[in-house]
Amino acid sequence: MARSKALDPYCSVARTLGVLGDRWTFLILREALAGATRFGEFQSALGIARDVLADRLATLVEYGVMTREPYQEPGRRSREAYLLTEAGRDLSVALGSLQQWGDKYLPRPDGPTVERRTRHSDRPVHVGFVDDLGNEIAPGDVVVNRTAAYPA
Amino acid sequence: MARSKALDPYCSVARTLGVLGDRWTFLILREALAGATRFGEFQSALGIARDVLADRLATLVEYGVMTREPYQEPGRRSREAYLLTEAGRDLSVALGSLQQWGDKYLPRPDGPTVERRTRHSDRPVHVGFVDDLGNEIAPGDVVVNRTAAYPA
Repeated sequence: MARSKALDPYCSVARTLGVLGDRWTFLILREALAGATRFGEFQSALGIARDVLADRLATLVEYGVMTREPYQEPGRRSREAYLLTEAGRDLSVALGSLQQWGDKYLPRPDGPTVERRTRHSDRPVHVGFVDDLGNEIAPGDVVVNRTAAYPA
Repeated sequence: MARSKALDPYCSVARTLGVLGDRWTFLILREALAGATRFGEFQSALGIARDVLADRLATLVEYGVMTREPYQEPGRRSREAYLLTEAGRDLSVALGSLQQWGDKYLPRPDGPTVERRTRHSDRPVHVGFVDDLGNEIAPGDVVVNRTAAYPA
């Protein structure tokens, strides 16, 4: 499939949103990160129209976020599963950052529906800025610098 | 202004995208985080149509991401500036996470146009999972648990 979208030449936020800038796409990714792989699983979890789902899955495959792999259950015809690539799994940080912002600023009366913990020590986990030594950095201590590649 | 959008009752990703799920909105926030405050600044930086810009700014004000404040330059009529609230400034983590994903998986030939560093020690900064002790946690060591508020 031809890459039909013109990606912004300068800004990685715009480039990312050129591929993912659609609510359905994010919700499909949420389901995929939670383990969904089949067309029917996405459809029933999201209540999304089949043509919209097919279109968004095709875009995710086109940009290397998912791969389409055949699978077959005994006695049934072959179907396709949608599996996250490394690029797709790497979106867990972006999804987590959107989720925690919603939890804080658009809260539900009953509180969050999911929470993140460390696998082994069961400590609460959030998304934040981190330096190359693995230490959290407060947003106010982060500066954004233009590189030599910044457009004149 | 009435809150015209029905926010997803369960998922904070969907709730966040109900407010922010639009490429222009993210790009307006990118400019605001870089210091833009005036209608004309957003318009010239983004090349966005006036009616679209006015609509997206109104949504950001409606949901408490920005406030509209009057300002006046000497000898000119009063105008309005758009200032980020705490909720708006807190989106820097989400913007950063989208940006670094694009830098990695949709790279420009010349490399990233901006980079994040620590303010005082000038170390590279990225967005990642962090536990409550301030230590970075690898994505594979993060588990997502449903809470009691998760829909049955």
